[in-house]
Amino acid sequence: MLTLFHWKDACSLASLITLKEAELEHDVYVVNLPAGDQRKPEFLALNPKGRVPALKTDRGILTETPAILIYLAQLAPDKKLAPFDDPFALATLQSFNAFLCSTVHVAHAHRMRGSRWADEQSSFDDMQRRVPGNIADGCRQIEETMFAGPWVMGETFSVADPYLFVICSWTKVDGVDIADFPKLHDHFRRMSDRPSVQAALAM
Amino acid sequence: MLTLFHWKDACSLASLITLKEAELEHDVYVVNLPAGDQRKPEFLALNPKGRVPALKTDRGILTETPAILIYLAQLAPDKKLAPFDDPFALATLQSFNAFLCSTVHVAHAHRMRGSRWADEQSSFDDMQRRVPGNIADGCRQIEETMFAGPWVMGETFSVADPYLFVICSWTKVDGVDIADFPKLHDHFRRMSDRPSVQAALAM
Ligand SMILES: N[C@@H](CCC(=O)N[C@@H](CS)C(=O)NCC(=O)O)C(=O)O
Ligand SMILES: N[C@@H](CCC(=O)N[C@@H](CS)C(=O)NCC(=O)O)C(=O)O
Repeated sequence: MLTLFHWKDACSLASLITLKEAELEHDVYVVNLPAGDQRKPEFLALNPKGRVPALKTDRGILTETPAILIYLAQLAPDKKLAPFDDPFALATLQSFNAFLCSTVHVAHAHRMRGSRWADEQSSFDDMQRRVPGNIADGCRQIEETMFAGPWVMGETFSVADPYLFVICSWTKVDGVDIADFPKLHDHFRRMSDRPSVQAALAM
Repeated sequence: MLTLFHWKDACSLASLITLKEAELEHDVYVVNLPAGDQRKPEFLALNPKGRVPALKTDRGILTETPAILIYLAQLAPDKKLAPFDDPFALATLQSFNAFLCSTVHVAHAHRMRGSRWADEQSSFDDMQRRVPGNIADGCRQIEETMFAGPWVMGETFSVADPYLFVICSWTKVDGVDIADFPKLHDHFRRMSDRPSVQAALAM
């Protein structure tokens, strides 16, 4: 059995959507981030990083969105959520997800989680002013150079699509209008209509 | 033919060491970061992100260290640099590399690249004060909860090892004494002795 440790506004939503796309049996355990559940000893015993997502499996705990997404794709090979038969295409998918994880998600985190990297209120204010520009840069990079269309990888839906959807769902609070990026906007709308996304958001 | 776009003090060193471990034929193109080569139009045409590593392949360009490392492991299956036959072990390896990429490398970048996320000198100073603590936290996390030993994944050397080596090679400038983390220190010394590392550093 798979149990996803999840909070609704967090990047763990990408893993939850992927569980639904993969039609893998799973439980969801809610980690209330605003209430500080992620810093409670019970959760830290399970995931010492104190973050979501964490995926409990029969073999142990997995963390980090790109790793969980590829793992879920491997558990449901018939769903073809990653191009396992083509090393270059697989690496391109991993590169896309690594960019979201290390650059776009990190740019977003500077809005509310500045205390990870600084201590002064003036630094937090400074960081927050840069968030819209940095998120727009990430969106532009994806729109212009990384998005094959109609899905991230081209004709075939993959685990990059739920992840991109979650990042795009944050643009509004980050001060960016997704409509400025026509391909991403269209992708966001098509994703919003998918049963997997509606089921995940209904939790 | 593979061409790695590389700078000696950068995370691209992990890809270069892996090319040598994999014994894959390759060229190295030096991108002088302090001189600003990464912002020149010729390089941006190749990698619009303006960063290293970038790997030129017959199929196109790959960026993002975790993606390049897994790709190189796939090109040299006989070297067994990733556990492709075990989805959970493969995901654990990817999780390790995603943590380095999105958390430890990002913590390090706040020392010299604060201008990615803020504008004021006071913010840069504030960020720099947090670097030693954040890097030490990352090292502690790895030492205590992620490092199987003697290599990252256990008995078998994998592409996580060159990446960890590069991150550990930065600890000194980041204000952390690697000797405070006995497993990482021992790993760093064993990595330093490997012919792949010596060949990569000699470039
Ligand atoms: N690199 C990790 C990042 C995970 C992460 O930062 N999760 C956030 C939610 S989006 C979190 O749990 N934050 C809680 C906190 O910082 O206290 C991944 O991609 O899974
Ligand atoms: N997420 C990327 C990060 C690449 C990166 O930040 N590279 C640095 C060197 S370690 C760089 O090229 N910096 C040049 C710059 O910021 O101008 C990866 O893991 O490959």
